[in-house]
Amino acid sequence: MKIAFLGTGRMGLPMARSLLAAGHEVTAWNRTRGKAEPLAAHGARIAGTPAEAAQDAEIAVTMLADDEALDEVVFGDEGIYEALPQGGVHLGCSTIGVQLSRTLADAHEIQRQLYVAAPVFGRPEAAEARKLKVVAAGEAGAIELCRPVLDAIAARTFVVGADPAHANVVKLCGNFMIAAMIETLGETFAMARKSGVEPATFLEVLDGTFFGSPIFGGYAARIAEGEYRPAAFTMRLGLKDLRLLLAAAEAAEVPMPGASLVRDRLLTGIALGRGEDDWSAAAALAAEQAGL
Amino acid sequence: MKIAFLGTGRMGLPMARSLLAAGHEVTAWNRTRGKAEPLAAHGARIAGTPAEAAQDAEIAVTMLADDEALDEVVFGDEGIYEALPQGGVHLGCSTIGVQLSRTLADAHEIQRQLYVAAPVFGRPEAAEARKLKVVAAGEAGAIELCRPVLDAIAARTFVVGADPAHANVVKLCGNFMIAAMIETLGETFAMARKSGVEPATFLEVLDGTFFGSPIFGGYAARIAEGEYRPAAFTMRLGLKDLRLLLAAAEAAEVPMPGASLVRDRLLTGIALGRGEDDWSAAAALAAEQAGL
Amino acid sequence: MKIAFLGTGRMGLPMARSLLAAGHEVTAWNRTRGKAEPLAAHGARIAGTPAEAAQDAEIAVTMLADDEALDEVVFGDEGIYEALPQGGVHLGCSTIGVQLSRTLADAHEIQRQLYVAAPVFGRPEAAEARKLKVVAAGEAGAIELCRPVLDAIAARTFVVGADPAHANVVKLCGNFMIAAMIETLGETFAMARKSGVEPATFLEVLDGTFFGSPIFGGYAARIAEGEYRPAAFTMRLGLKDLRLLLAAAEAAEVPMPGASLVRDRLLTGIALGRGEDDWSAAAALAAEQAGL
Amino acid sequence: MKIAFLGTGRMGLPMARSLLAAGHEVTAWNRTRGKAEPLAAHGARIAGTPAEAAQDAEIAVTMLADDEALDEVVFGDEGIYEALPQGGVHLGCSTIGVQLSRTLADAHEIQRQLYVAAPVFGRPEAAEARKLKVVAAGEAGAIELCRPVLDAIAARTFVVGADPAHANVVKLCGNFMIAAMIETLGETFAMARKSGVEPATFLEVLDGTFFGSPIFGGYAARIAEGEYRPAAFTMRLGLKDLRLLLAAAEAAEVPMPGASLVRDRLLTGIALGRGEDDWSAAAALAAEQAGL
Repeated sequence: MKIAFLGTGRMGLPMARSLLAAGHEVTAWNRTRGKAEPLAAHGARIAGTPAEAAQDAEIAVTMLADDEALDEVVFGDEGIYEALPQGGVHLGCSTIGVQLSRTLADAHEIQRQLYVAAPVFGRPEAAEARKLKVVAAGEAGAIELCRPVLDAIAARTFVVGADPAHANVVKLCGNFMIAAMIETLGETFAMARKSGVEPATFLEVLDGTFFGSPIFGGYAARIAEGEYRPAAFTMRLGLKDLRLLLAAAEAAEVPMPGASLVRDRLLTGIALGRGEDDWSAAAALAAEQAGL
Repeated sequence: MKIAFLGTGRMGLPMARSLLAAGHEVTAWNRTRGKAEPLAAHGARIAGTPAEAAQDAEIAVTMLADDEALDEVVFGDEGIYEALPQGGVHLGCSTIGVQLSRTLADAHEIQRQLYVAAPVFGRPEAAEARKLKVVAAGEAGAIELCRPVLDAIAARTFVVGADPAHANVVKLCGNFMIAAMIETLGETFAMARKSGVEPATFLEVLDGTFFGSPIFGGYAARIAEGEYRPAAFTMRLGLKDLRLLLAAAEAAEVPMPGASLVRDRLLTGIALGRGEDDWSAAAALAAEQAGL
Repeated sequence: MKIAFLGTGRMGLPMARSLLAAGHEVTAWNRTRGKAEPLAAHGARIAGTPAEAAQDAEIAVTMLADDEALDEVVFGDEGIYEALPQGGVHLGCSTIGVQLSRTLADAHEIQRQLYVAAPVFGRPEAAEARKLKVVAAGEAGAIELCRPVLDAIAARTFVVGADPAHANVVKLCGNFMIAAMIETLGETFAMARKSGVEPATFLEVLDGTFFGSPIFGGYAARIAEGEYRPAAFTMRLGLKDLRLLLAAAEAAEVPMPGASLVRDRLLTGIALGRGEDDWSAAAALAAEQAGL
Repeated sequence: MKIAFLGTGRMGLPMARSLLAAGHEVTAWNRTRGKAEPLAAHGARIAGTPAEAAQDAEIAVTMLADDEALDEVVFGDEGIYEALPQGGVHLGCSTIGVQLSRTLADAHEIQRQLYVAAPVFGRPEAAEARKLKVVAAGEAGAIELCRPVLDAIAARTFVVGADPAHANVVKLCGNFMIAAMIETLGETFAMARKSGVEPATFLEVLDGTFFGSPIFGGYAARIAEGEYRPAAFTMRLGLKDLRLLLAAAEAAEVPMPGASLVRDRLLTGIALGRGEDDWSAAAALAAEQAGL
């Protein structure tokens, strides 16, 4: 396919290379032109502006740093918005805000172009190895048009809905999940270390118990289903353990704000009469407080 | 071995059965005697008091609901404290507080008994299937004495130190990690649902990206090592994504207090000059604020 | 003076009346014209567009609902930006964001107009009674030009700096302070009620101890000075009391997330070696974590 | 009256002096005897043990550092529990936990002694000047017996109920209120400073707007009443301002966790359909989440 590739940074460069390796005709553009030029050796044409890259493309892939950069590449002077032919697809792989994704969906529709949001999970090494996971959303037909591109860059593509914004929501939630795990790891490693447990020992336990085990997935499945009785482990028991941890952490002088927050959630559940529900009913509270 | 088993509830009962199946001589006690009696059919003797069960035991295993229950079974009238022979081991499998574990360590030493803290990860079904993971701490010699017991009930035993309290810290940190994951899942499922993403679809993405992948373990390893440069994903980029998520969640009217907390952690890192560190340096902040 | 008044809603209307009562020549505009018309009876001219109101004004006062509304009134078609004469002052009384205030300062400078940010504390009744408190920032000369306006609407004007954005920061901090007090009141009233204390009784104590007393002001003065030794009440004692409160609240099943947050702050202070500082040194931690 | 005074530290010493000045017969005891001895010059008898001090007292006043110290002085060897005559009153002025207060109430009843919890607000200087505020709870008759003592040490006594624990709840809530104000001040001073506003200037605004004004008291009254319509300032507007503050704080790199928490509370209110309620309805949410 004829593909315009906008943004050949640490993630975009290996993605564009994957497209070239899969036999696609790629025209690449990058703000700092030098970062796109290595692609010429792999057969890419290098464009001077986004518009030039997009003018005869079937699909324009964008992989940019943030909302501002993407906004400029699409709507700026020499942006792809005016250049991409009718029926062409903008495949947006950047991690951007939900609002901008909505704006893009509306704007491209006016121009009779298609828009698919397709943010990716994975690092440059995963991009290099075509092991990215893509979360895509958009009209089914538009996604089908993008299949050859998606298959060339990703190990797997999850289609999460017809509204492009859905993909952005899922991607942002995923990044929060990682950040929350980091916060939790940070607090627990601090607590373990200050209590005299070796970090390597603590890591060994985590590796042998949680990571790679079905524990987290099991809770996610229960939450997806929304059934919190019978309890495998009650809110009340969960609160007990959090109380014991916070008491020990206070004695060791280790602030654990994440643990405080979780404690308050469990306590709220108990105050609202869910003490004997499974502790994953914390998710029911989160939903209720969102007005669901 | 001659084993006293105190507390034959939902977890204790299958654990005691595993010991009997492995050929040990078990005397069981439970506050509600009826809950211990099914073990008689498997060859256990049923005792009327904790003291009676412990009086000629080599190892007294306790598996009780909370600190109060354990305190009573050990130090109460007819408790095991006076009854367990010198050189006998109290193998404490309950999830209890760090303070009580310290008290037990001191008390048993006075009585020339041994004490090993060995809380378990796993549910009744895992206990049934001898698939528990045990986190043990105590003097090496005492742990060795308990090996036959540990091997009979657990798929794996992690020895985390010579100070029994270490095992309790690790267990409590582990339970917090699950609770924090539940909180994060609760907030993200609420956000996904309110944004129009099907829970089953969201679950599919989580299953295909995080759970069963080395992502969380990789971060844990980095944190255990304490090296945050070069960054795979910077604090500054992490903050950007949290900001986008919180903005979208506000627009969708979904409160995400866990995300707010993580955002503030990342912002603190940036304010303190760590903006270009890997975002797992949030763990370095947690450690610093604990005075480490 | 010749004054354009843009935005005659619940706050703006009485403010404009105050200006008329003080003898100023006021041209008023409101998006819903009907809301401006009552001012005609007090001698105001009613304009059809912001530009019309501003075209011969010495000072253009804006009092609008939010950033979007102000942006439109200033920079939109028929906005005041092109109309206000050179040397004219835009006196912005709305509670708006710091970023927009910076944008306005730059934009008006280009047009050789002056810009003073002057958000107000007070409700419609206070506006009616000319008892508003104004927080103003901008060039000294510009503020002097606005004095007759400020004197006509406010009981007191605080000049907080030459950079207009300063006034917006202070106003937003002030509103947060009220919201935080509401959160704290909400949690404590819930705790008092659930513990059996009558709300009216609790209110009586608060009225007789904190409100109207120099307690809060005293702490603010200490924080402004930045001296936390000798302690009047140490961080360590503060943590003790928060611990007791959270334990009682847990027993009564009352979640107090604000108290958890404060507890973690005090614990951080102690972990960092400030246990014997006055507990107001929590403010020193907040400053340090901001990189100050 | 014949008064035993237990605990003559920084607070207790001036309180005991006030009792002597009012003509009472005081027997003082302190763990470090030297700290009680200055009272001898004012006419006090110095006792060697709590029991000795209490043995012929009508009222035993305790003013100790924490739960452990009070527990020891009451129930320890040589404690007042066995010594205080039947009908004697234990007037507990320390800031202690609700649980211990309940225990004391029960224990003294068994011994046919009376117990009044009467924690104090105020510092040593206030104690010196007899300007303490006392929050008392207990049986009406017992409080009446204590009146001469209360009148000698306090500017004002608030009676908050017949259950002694009520006084402890109110005192702990009061201390949290101060700590929360300190947290809020800490965050806002950090934000003001980092934005370039002088601390002294910010203090001047706070002094001129909030402190000494009826603002906080007005909100407390509204919350005590529980009426949140019509709104003086809506939740929705409150959220807007918090959003603007957090955006500005992020740009200035100032973490404001308290503001994040308040933002999430307001957002919860909006998600639950209270967007047009007065923002003090945050208190209604706190109550609901406590199961009220």
